[in-house]
Amino acid sequence: MEKEELQTLLQELIANKQAKKLKELFESTPTIDIAEALEDETDVKSLLYVIRVIGSEYSADFFTELTSDQQEMIINAFTDKELLTMLENSFADDIVDTLEEMPANLVSRVLKVAPKELRKDINTLLNYEEDTAGSLLTTEYLDMKSSMTVEEVIEEVRKKGKDAETVYTIFIRDSKRTMVGTVDLDDLIFAKKDQTMEDIMNRDFVTCHVNDDQEKIANMFKRYDLNAMAVVNKENKIIGIITIDDVVDIIVEEATEDISMLNQVTPVEDEYLKTPIYKLVLKCVPWIIVLMILQVFSTMILSRFETAIAAFSILSVFTPLIMDAGGNSGNQTTTIIVRSLALDEFDKGDAKKVIWKEFRVALVIAGIIAVFTFGWLMFEMAIGIVSLDNVVEKYSFLNRGTTMVIVASLVSGTLFATIIVSRLIGCLLPFFAKLIKKDPAVMCGPLTTTIVDIVSLLTYFLLWTLVFAPILGI
Amino acid sequence: MEKEELQTLLQELIANKQAKKLKELFESTPTIDIAEALEDETDVKSLLYVIRVIGSEYSADFFTELTSDQQEMIINAFTDKELLTMLENSFADDIVDTLEEMPANLVSRVLKVAPKELRKDINTLLNYEEDTAGSLLTTEYLDMKSSMTVEEVIEEVRKKGKDAETVYTIFIRDSKRTMVGTVDLDDLIFAKKDQTMEDIMNRDFVTCHVNDDQEKIANMFKRYDLNAMAVVNKENKIIGIITIDDVVDIIVEEATEDISMLNQVTPVEDEYLKTPIYKLVLKCVPWIIVLMILQVFSTMILSRFETAIAAFSILSVFTPLIMDAGGNSGNQTTTIIVRSLALDEFDKGDAKKVIWKEFRVALVIAGIIAVFTFGWLMFEMAIGIVSLDNVVEKYSFLNRGTTMVIVASLVSGTLFATIIVSRLIGCLLPFFAKLIKKDPAVMCGPLTTTIVDIVSLLTYFLLWTLVFAPILGI
Repeated sequence: MEKEELQTLLQELIANKQAKKLKELFESTPTIDIAEALEDETDVKSLLYVIRVIGSEYSADFFTELTSDQQEMIINAFTDKELLTMLENSFADDIVDTLEEMPANLVSRVLKVAPKELRKDINTLLNYEEDTAGSLLTTEYLDMKSSMTVEEVIEEVRKKGKDAETVYTIFIRDSKRTMVGTVDLDDLIFAKKDQTMEDIMNRDFVTCHVNDDQEKIANMFKRYDLNAMAVVNKENKIIGIITIDDVVDIIVEEATEDISMLNQVTPVEDEYLKTPIYKLVLKCVPWIIVLMILQVFSTMILSRFETAIAAFSILSVFTPLIMDAGGNSGNQTTTIIVRSLALDEFDKGDAKKVIWKEFRVALVIAGIIAVFTFGWLMFEMAIGIVSLDNVVEKYSFLNRGTTMVIVASLVSGTLFATIIVSRLIGCLLPFFAKLIKKDPAVMCGPLTTTIVDIVSLLTYFLLWTLVFAPILGI
Repeated sequence: MEKEELQTLLQELIANKQAKKLKELFESTPTIDIAEALEDETDVKSLLYVIRVIGSEYSADFFTELTSDQQEMIINAFTDKELLTMLENSFADDIVDTLEEMPANLVSRVLKVAPKELRKDINTLLNYEEDTAGSLLTTEYLDMKSSMTVEEVIEEVRKKGKDAETVYTIFIRDSKRTMVGTVDLDDLIFAKKDQTMEDIMNRDFVTCHVNDDQEKIANMFKRYDLNAMAVVNKENKIIGIITIDDVVDIIVEEATEDISMLNQVTPVEDEYLKTPIYKLVLKCVPWIIVLMILQVFSTMILSRFETAIAAFSILSVFTPLIMDAGGNSGNQTTTIIVRSLALDEFDKGDAKKVIWKEFRVALVIAGIIAVFTFGWLMFEMAIGIVSLDNVVEKYSFLNRGTTMVIVASLVSGTLFATIIVSRLIGCLLPFFAKLIKKDPAVMCGPLTTTIVDIVSLLTYFLLWTLVFAPILGI
């Protein structure tokens, strides 16, 4: 059903209090679609009506998908009993995600109503650092002793599975509570009733620690095709699990972050149309200003060589070309390396290999571009796209042919040097960022551009004033 | 175990033919880690030894994770019987992924050896278009009739589940083979033995079609937290399924593509260190050349205004600043919009809302930047970072103060106009790309930069020659 259709239908059902039809709608339509169709609903009574009518099977899911303003209104309107039911039907990690957007008084009300065990879990989860395994984990999982039989485990799954975030992966521990394996739900189905977990479990499982970065976790899920992974402490005891649905969100979030930072925008967390204008402004303006301030070096260089430009004004025509081609090359390398680092492609000690490889790549690219530029500029000048009149008028000892060769050589020589240096900088910076534990994308976006601008301009004007100008006697 | 340790151990075990220890290693270590430790192994005998020793439980997985050169060697060395066993233990979609990298003679050998049913599936899969649901689907899934009981279905799962790519989602069809629901494996565990699929199935399932774009599929998995999704034809009959592990790969691949294209690099499919130098060169050089050629317009503008620059040479000092700030703003918008489009945030008819919102954002940003620029340039000139000597010497009627105000007004006025236009272009282009069915990231990367460059330069010089120069009488 299209969104607008759904909106009309919902308004009608709620207005006419058609409880049965409303419940049927939840049975036949994904909950997130219904929640989204109600995103503009600000009447808490309507929302409460929906929640009360659809029953515990859908209400926790529905609540999770609402906007945080709506959630706040609802919690305020809930009786303690309703709040408790909702908490009991939700997973600890979803509750924490909701609470992180709430004002303090609501958080303490929720904590007060929550049963003791859940309260403890929520408090622990709230304290894990952002972007780590801890911030992703949930405490509702199934762990079984390795000595249990298939029959016993299936019985336990039946009893406790409804409260677990996943029953597809069951975590196996020995008598000391150390994790020793995993069993997939289908292994249970295929196994004989009297086999023990010891017999059928996978021993080639992987785990992570509470402080591991979420990007690392995402790469592990991708690499090992996991559905769920245990988070363990130093003694290899499980403290929680991470499931694939949260990891999919992380992969998308990390990609948005890298795409944004490499293009000098602070990542927009919410959907574009839901983000207020002042927030969009704040995500863009600081970067433009930072880059303008960093450009003080380019400005100084250009100002310093203003006399050279005035004397040989055709120089100014190619300044943008040189800066763009240099910036481009540097950006290309940064992009490739930042992405490879994000996907965890490099082992320890690979940095040297990468830099040596990039040096050879840069050499080839610089060579090709220098040759192309020479030909292309000769062409531009020959057909008059770039006029030589000013130069030829001013310096009687220069004819058109010589001027063309001089200009084309100067620009292509500059590009040759600039591209090699830019690519090396574009390659070194991400590794340096990693070394000093900064996010490569955040650091490299603005820095590569700035440094490369300086390098290109300096090369261009130094090549002119130190080599070409003296030869020509200008 | 670290990669080097694993490599040493494997070499030892293979050299000494320690079959039992080798098998134990596969039991305790993820297969992909072992395959990667052997990535430089070029001796087909060693690889065949490993495959034969580890047995069918691990061999198909192991084979899938090897490099395509290794796979080719192995298929060549396989007897028909070994090839058949391997095929029977593999999923059709993995076989197709392997075959796509193989020379034609190997493909036909595989097809000859494959059983009839599998051959048909492989042939169909090979013909689906790249980047569509068809290219991701696999034909090994479980579908059951809606009238079957829980007990019957569990029995079927036991029998046929080993050959299915997932048993966590079971697809339910009616007597006409139309898909009517899904049942999760845990629903079976929780249900009573004599309940039918009709009673327990989810009716709020989502499906996709063979030609749907893979980016759309990825967004659906993320939105609905799916483990598997059915691909159906026009009559709602299932023709295959897509599983979450393939979707995770797609999300990463699509993100790499967008990050690369927005920064003017063709996406590198393989790991950086495994990609040959000539390939890396080919992924970068064309873009640099295309951008240089597109820059012909900027060059023409600069060349046309060379006389103005020669007359008032301080103009050249701020050209890069204007081009960068303009390019920056355009890129920021393009990045935000391209990402929003990739994540499927916009409904039909949202384009107008987005453009109107972006216009307001642009107005605010342009205002802030214009004010900042005026102040910042006054400061740069006041403390001598930008020298005014040339201008003041040449035009006796200009004093420093007046010149500062003129230059700062010119540049900040230019930026005000440029930022508004750039952001609108950066916002319109992705929608336009979408309209003409091009990938927004591919089209917008180079085009935004080029158009914005032209706009900034034209604004700058027209503002000077039409407004400021006449007022000053220069």
